[in-house]
Amino acid sequence: MTVPFTSLDSFRHLLATCPAPDSAAQGLALARNGQLTKPPGALGRLEDLAIWLAGWQGREKPQASAPQVVIFAANHGIAARGVSAFPPQVTAQMVANFRHGGAAINQLSRTFGASLGVHALDLDQPTADFTQGPAMTEAEVVSALATGWNAVDPEADLLVTGEMGIGNTTSAAAIAAALLGGNAQDWVGRGTGVDDHGLARKAETVRAGLVAHADALHDPLEVLRRLGGREIAAMTGAIARARMERVAVVLDGFICCAAALVLQRLHEGALDHCIAGHVSAEAGHGRLLAALGKDPLLALGLRLGEGSGAALALGVVQGAIACHSGMATFAEAGVSGA
Amino acid sequence: MTVPFTSLDSFRHLLATCPAPDSAAQGLALARNGQLTKPPGALGRLEDLAIWLAGWQGREKPQASAPQVVIFAANHGIAARGVSAFPPQVTAQMVANFRHGGAAINQLSRTFGASLGVHALDLDQPTADFTQGPAMTEAEVVSALATGWNAVDPEADLLVTGEMGIGNTTSAAAIAAALLGGNAQDWVGRGTGVDDHGLARKAETVRAGLVAHADALHDPLEVLRRLGGREIAAMTGAIARARMERVAVVLDGFICCAAALVLQRLHEGALDHCIAGHVSAEAGHGRLLAALGKDPLLALGLRLGEGSGAALALGVVQGAIACHSGMATFAEAGVSGA
Repeated sequence: MTVPFTSLDSFRHLLATCPAPDSAAQGLALARNGQLTKPPGALGRLEDLAIWLAGWQGREKPQASAPQVVIFAANHGIAARGVSAFPPQVTAQMVANFRHGGAAINQLSRTFGASLGVHALDLDQPTADFTQGPAMTEAEVVSALATGWNAVDPEADLLVTGEMGIGNTTSAAAIAAALLGGNAQDWVGRGTGVDDHGLARKAETVRAGLVAHADALHDPLEVLRRLGGREIAAMTGAIARARMERVAVVLDGFICCAAALVLQRLHEGALDHCIAGHVSAEAGHGRLLAALGKDPLLALGLRLGEGSGAALALGVVQGAIACHSGMATFAEAGVSGA
Repeated sequence: MTVPFTSLDSFRHLLATCPAPDSAAQGLALARNGQLTKPPGALGRLEDLAIWLAGWQGREKPQASAPQVVIFAANHGIAARGVSAFPPQVTAQMVANFRHGGAAINQLSRTFGASLGVHALDLDQPTADFTQGPAMTEAEVVSALATGWNAVDPEADLLVTGEMGIGNTTSAAAIAAALLGGNAQDWVGRGTGVDDHGLARKAETVRAGLVAHADALHDPLEVLRRLGGREIAAMTGAIARARMERVAVVLDGFICCAAALVLQRLHEGALDHCIAGHVSAEAGHGRLLAALGKDPLLALGLRLGEGSGAALALGVVQGAIACHSGMATFAEAGVSGA
């Protein structure tokens, strides 16, 4: 499929043309919400969710019955630096597990009626070690963005983007540090469960990456190319496509949010179509969400990736939409107002 | 149906005979959890939920596909004191709305595949104004406990108890203050949305109730009889029945937790089968949950009652159970360990 960009420069210009939500549909949803058989505001954040989704879907009664989950997998040159508790071959093994239906995200997608797409990006070609040079060439990062762009179903009610890639919390930490500042150790965490030595190696790797690419840290897409990974760039591409198509996105954990951060730094309203599904146990995720201005729906200590926390949050969104779209109004039910 | 109690005294003695969870099943679930294709602990609280439910259901792979929601509705003498933003006839109107499928709890029950039972308790006979005397006679409170007891399906995977009753946050606040101490104003909140004058009337009503029944505040069942309501007693009965049958319960908001508190004060382990579905926006709910020792799954600012917050949390429990019971092990999937 053709994508509307062939270089980082043409991708950069796309977001400036992204559409606004449908304010008329949002207004209708707001009015409907005020007539439903409940005290005003009594459904809390569920009310905000329904009105927000009405705007993105362009209808007074939004739907959440056909969500799409897409997972991207890739390998990282920095994995050789001992930044993960698991060996790099686990990326391909987990892709097989996704395809056979054995992973957490398979169970969560099925539970909430979501389709699940799995995209493995050149697993036999890890990105370059970013402490030694750029992780990807421009052609490589553009190709990964295009994979993500093409993975999105423009008819989906909601989109969840997830990832698998041994070493990718280190890459995400490098992106966050590059775009938000702070020290390397502020952004690295335990990932899949590294010990103190592994954590120190992660911080040292991020620090070396920031030094090696110090001249390019002002440019979000260059940060993605130099410090990112193919699966991270694919999530960036998918979230951008969703923004252009007005498909609402439920963000997952630290790595997904690092991919989203690249877009936010390119264009102020680039993440208006996104909500935060959860805050993970990964050390920097809460701070990253704060930088994105997103208040997570769930806080249950997950730190698995795969889109799992966002997929779990689909249940909350579906509950919100069911209430908004299915409840009777005071008039319909013959219930007295306050 | 016969219930195993005919008086508050015989109800009191029941809980002392309540069964323990199945520790063998819990042990099997714990071992299984350690073999699933994810880093240890990476599903956070979902892992604890699955292991806990395995114990109550007595199987290594618990289920959450057939939950039961029961709602109890009743009217309160204190409603005449202006403690609610809505008139008392709304209780019956909302029962009709539940029966016609138009309320939030109908939509949430359907979303998560739960059955929904609606029990209206003598709506044309409000409890007595508890500032003037006991809200209920012993026969009345025993009858309400029995209604709750009989409403529970012992084969349900999970139970949610909800309520509807104009004025019942005031009754719940009186119970909490009686059993946990503190001033009346520490326990009253906005409920369905009273203004400052309404809030002051609520505090004054609770204060008067505590004074009127000062001699009986040491006895949890007398507190329930004197300050409670029929729907609150029915929830107490339902949660007790679930405890005896080892049916796990997802607690709802402030009023549900006040009903549960009565049981906890009768017997230390009476709520071991309960988790907190959410913390509501009602002022005292967070403190009440802390007194129960329960950490809520959700915090989304709901304050509707009807079991709505607990029903929404069913999605989280279902996600947890789907992962635990459906994921492949490392050996099954051929994935390398850490």
